[in-house]
Amino acid sequence: MEKKFRRPRGLEEKGKNEGAQKRPHLVISTGRRTARMGAMDLADLLLGRPLATEEEKAERIGPAKGIPIFGLDALSSAAYGPEAALTLLIPLGMAGVAHIVPISICVIVLLGIVYFSYRQTIEAYPLGGGSYTVASENLGMWAGLLAAAALMVDYVLTAAVGISAGVGALVSAVPAAQPHTLEICLGILALVCLVNLRGVSESGGVFLAPTYLFIGCLMMAILIGAAKTVAAGGHPAPVVAPPQLKSATEALSMWLLLRAFASGCTAMTGVEAVSNGVGAFREPTAKYARLTLTWIIGILVAMLAGIAWLTDAYGIAATPPGEPGYQSVLSMLIAAIGGKGWFYGVSMGAIIVVLSLSANTAFADFPRLARAIAQNGFLPHSLTTRGRRLVYTQGVYMLTILAGALLVFFGGITDRLIPLYAVGAFLAFTLSQAGMVMHWKRVRGAGARSGMWINALGALATGITVAVVLMAKFKEGAWITVLLIPGLMLAMRMVKRHYEWVAHETECDAPLNLANLHPPLVVLPMDRWSRVTQKALRFAMVLSSDIVALHVDAGEQSEELKQRWRELVEVPCLQAGRKPPDLIVLESPYRFVLQPILAHILELGRDNPNRQISVLVPELVEPRWYTSLLHNHRSAVLKTLLLFKGNLRITVVNIPWYLGE
Amino acid sequence: MEKKFRRPRGLEEKGKNEGAQKRPHLVISTGRRTARMGAMDLADLLLGRPLATEEEKAERIGPAKGIPIFGLDALSSAAYGPEAALTLLIPLGMAGVAHIVPISICVIVLLGIVYFSYRQTIEAYPLGGGSYTVASENLGMWAGLLAAAALMVDYVLTAAVGISAGVGALVSAVPAAQPHTLEICLGILALVCLVNLRGVSESGGVFLAPTYLFIGCLMMAILIGAAKTVAAGGHPAPVVAPPQLKSATEALSMWLLLRAFASGCTAMTGVEAVSNGVGAFREPTAKYARLTLTWIIGILVAMLAGIAWLTDAYGIAATPPGEPGYQSVLSMLIAAIGGKGWFYGVSMGAIIVVLSLSANTAFADFPRLARAIAQNGFLPHSLTTRGRRLVYTQGVYMLTILAGALLVFFGGITDRLIPLYAVGAFLAFTLSQAGMVMHWKRVRGAGARSGMWINALGALATGITVAVVLMAKFKEGAWITVLLIPGLMLAMRMVKRHYEWVAHETECDAPLNLANLHPPLVVLPMDRWSRVTQKALRFAMVLSSDIVALHVDAGEQSEELKQRWRELVEVPCLQAGRKPPDLIVLESPYRFVLQPILAHILELGRDNPNRQISVLVPELVEPRWYTSLLHNHRSAVLKTLLLFKGNLRITVVNIPWYLGE
Repeated sequence: MEKKFRRPRGLEEKGKNEGAQKRPHLVISTGRRTARMGAMDLADLLLGRPLATEEEKAERIGPAKGIPIFGLDALSSAAYGPEAALTLLIPLGMAGVAHIVPISICVIVLLGIVYFSYRQTIEAYPLGGGSYTVASENLGMWAGLLAAAALMVDYVLTAAVGISAGVGALVSAVPAAQPHTLEICLGILALVCLVNLRGVSESGGVFLAPTYLFIGCLMMAILIGAAKTVAAGGHPAPVVAPPQLKSATEALSMWLLLRAFASGCTAMTGVEAVSNGVGAFREPTAKYARLTLTWIIGILVAMLAGIAWLTDAYGIAATPPGEPGYQSVLSMLIAAIGGKGWFYGVSMGAIIVVLSLSANTAFADFPRLARAIAQNGFLPHSLTTRGRRLVYTQGVYMLTILAGALLVFFGGITDRLIPLYAVGAFLAFTLSQAGMVMHWKRVRGAGARSGMWINALGALATGITVAVVLMAKFKEGAWITVLLIPGLMLAMRMVKRHYEWVAHETECDAPLNLANLHPPLVVLPMDRWSRVTQKALRFAMVLSSDIVALHVDAGEQSEELKQRWRELVEVPCLQAGRKPPDLIVLESPYRFVLQPILAHILELGRDNPNRQISVLVPELVEPRWYTSLLHNHRSAVLKTLLLFKGNLRITVVNIPWYLGE
Repeated sequence: MEKKFRRPRGLEEKGKNEGAQKRPHLVISTGRRTARMGAMDLADLLLGRPLATEEEKAERIGPAKGIPIFGLDALSSAAYGPEAALTLLIPLGMAGVAHIVPISICVIVLLGIVYFSYRQTIEAYPLGGGSYTVASENLGMWAGLLAAAALMVDYVLTAAVGISAGVGALVSAVPAAQPHTLEICLGILALVCLVNLRGVSESGGVFLAPTYLFIGCLMMAILIGAAKTVAAGGHPAPVVAPPQLKSATEALSMWLLLRAFASGCTAMTGVEAVSNGVGAFREPTAKYARLTLTWIIGILVAMLAGIAWLTDAYGIAATPPGEPGYQSVLSMLIAAIGGKGWFYGVSMGAIIVVLSLSANTAFADFPRLARAIAQNGFLPHSLTTRGRRLVYTQGVYMLTILAGALLVFFGGITDRLIPLYAVGAFLAFTLSQAGMVMHWKRVRGAGARSGMWINALGALATGITVAVVLMAKFKEGAWITVLLIPGLMLAMRMVKRHYEWVAHETECDAPLNLANLHPPLVVLPMDRWSRVTQKALRFAMVLSSDIVALHVDAGEQSEELKQRWRELVEVPCLQAGRKPPDLIVLESPYRFVLQPILAHILELGRDNPNRQISVLVPELVEPRWYTSLLHNHRSAVLKTLLLFKGNLRITVVNIPWYLGE
């Protein structure tokens, strides 16, 4: 049978005359104009024009672009990792500073182990193997969920810590801004969120300049500092002296060193990025990804080693965070090496930008992780929907809200966020390495044995670190992640269960059942005889011949209505030979209007157990929103009540009446 | 034709077999159980059980009850009127206090004139003649609207000033509470609102005890003070000396006295209450109402005269309001006369309660006034609806919000509210008197001439007072009322216009038109073939044989859907000899889902200009609210979009699917 309606102008028709039955399935390609109907100009201005799905482009990259894109998060950790360890050494006074060297050596050794582990992951997953993928594929659902929860916590903290550390650098350079730390943090978060809703393409040059500037400045400072230190025989004179240290308030203990090491481990966060994104590299992907990883880890090791040596040499201790007079360790170090001239300014600027951008990497990774989890049904489906700019919008919002909550809760102070940070990251490392062990076991063959041993070492080392961090940081905040991660896992499991249940409930493989297609019993609540009622009644008469009009009498006389009903409805119906609709008056001594209607409809449902009931709800639509304040909104309330108190057999038909049309 | 459904148990049927056509009009009396369905227990607890309309009782009262009920507002004015005048005299120093005597004499003379005027209103309107009624009946619509606006402003200020003056008395007795003035004001306002939502019956004894206690205490203090003054030859020694006065900072001027008089006029607010409520008195209503009015005015005059004389004799000047150390004039006066013993405590307690209750009279009057105006169509109809406790709930809310806004804006300080107060009250007096002049002119007959002269004098005196108050208080706040009252009048006129327009738009005197009852074109947006879709499609097939299923393809392949559609829908339809529904796939390169659907529906509407279009919107209803967060809410958004962007020919049919049923 042919369609009765004209085809809209300018729309093409595809897929006609295909399929077994030779029935036309019309495919209409809506043009830009139509698709964008209703989109506001403000959204265009803020977020940019919508992008078509086919506009997505996948540029393949090499190490030069790979280092900034995938290394930013890891490299920027050098700006807060050593500081986090030094902050814990404050109570030891000047004597504490020297301990940064052995702590950094431990971190660097761990980094080396993780490096060799991840080289193997890159080899094994040339399309990209994040912890979630590796753990769920090799260790089963629960391990996958554990990795998912750990990574979600990790990314939220990456965003929060990146921003708070960037603002920490800012208030070091501009001490007057210190009282507004939290406000500046939230402002930057909002900006990062907006930029990500616009969907900054990763291959854009945004990351290149600041990352290389950051590497350049820091390496330059380290080299100059190293030269001066060697020239001065190990004890160089600072150009700008760091603030005076208070004397020791605590004695050295193993426990304190363990806690400082646990904090220092945050310097390693972000090194998994390359293995997640192997697919983005030029062919052969694994080769270029490994090369990039080598560069990143090499630079990071150089930075950590240099910072540790020079802070010790210059005698730079951390200042108490969140208090007036706070200055970041890198700020003091660079000022001590080169003074507070233009080099200091450029370096601090690069640090601020790189730290803010490292928050941005969480915004690139979190929505994709959330999508991957949601595609498996463990998170709300809406996380898989791409917004106008091809970005997983809901994931961006979710990350913004969670990171914002963390910043508000911890006052935007990096040091308070650190205890929560390392657990998630190292848990994800451990699961990824452990998954790789299982991978090698399955694969077997040449190199599998040595590969397995390397990954097992990685899993062991990172696993021990998780235990150390948990223990050392438990009271300070790690307990939050201990509650959060299993909670997230359970929640994800329940989401999956719910979706399975809904799918089961709505699943239908049966063909359309055409039996028992009876007209419904129609109910029409009405106030008085008006054009609106007449329109609704005409619709009712098309629908069925069993019509009940309901009128609620809350004290006023309804005799006139009954009289009019007889004259204006019943007489014409009888003359036309149709069954006239019934008018039922519900007396309402308590003056409730909707409850008697609802009760009566539900009663009708019980009394007619095999019948559909259609409730016709006429509704006035005002041309202006403010005039709608002059009317009661019983129609809207009745629709809602029927939706929530109704049942499968009750359908609600909304008959809108547009005033002034 | 007989009804097909069983009558619900326990419901009676009335009005059967009446009327010309002998058709049954079923009248169902819903019992308490049914009527209350869905009412929450919390509401019962806070507001009391619902009252049936027939439970309303009208107790008729005499002067003993009439004085507290209708006199409370007027009598409590003695607690802030003289103080308002004295506050303006502060800059004159000690010399200023003496001027309270001539100012009070002017106020008392004015009060006498108003008294005689209102005696006549009571006579002429034995069913109750408020300013709004008298002005609209005798002077036309615009004068009525002016009176309505003036009275609304007056009542809002009565509520705000009553509460703020009560709290002023409280902080005089308990100075530690002074910094929390505004919070206490808002707390009392909330309480008064809640009490009024419960619907305190006016005939209840709440008002009796505090009012007579207030009158007793104040008269007792005045008598003792008078005796002491006479005994001391005019200059009695205070028991507790009032705070020291600062020396004069301003010279005496006519302008200052005029402003003090304008403030003092607030002592007269509330005297119109008896004339509004004549209908509540015992027969002969006019006689008892006049007697009550005489008593109220008599007591008020005695109080005002006594306060003026004694503040002068004891040398009590006002203290700067809203500042630490503030004490109300009555507090200082009673302490000076009798010391701060138990009598002081009882008196201050009575003043606090009476002032708070005087706010309550605004809550009794405002909703009724709003109802009267709304019944004439000048305010939203919802103001005429009586809530569960027979109270005009919306009016109570409206007054609470407006009075609350005033209290917040003016910090809960009586003195800052006073300039706004007198204008509304005196404007209403004037219009009422002027209306009475026209009334006498129309009535003619014996006494009409003298009656007319009395009311003309009243109108003149109050009219002049309005002008004086406006002029004297313009800069301090009266300008607000000058903007507000005409604004309100215009708004009310526009509301009426709008209602008339809506009535005109929906008016229908024509009988039901049974011509051209064609089945609609049915549109069914769908995602996949499911039980939900099947249910909607079955409903569609009952409705019409022209059905279009719309599927939006945002990138994924829709071949499988087309295949299933052929097998599961088209084949069974063709086998059953029915026209199969069309499946249209809308390609959406920008991944928008709702916009293409909406655009296509509107396009269908344009292409089929004479056809109804029914859009079937299937909707999942979750058994628990939180699981509904796991689904997108496209159905709800689509319904809203269709309501606002649709037109007369588009109806929306909601097909709910209840999960887990």
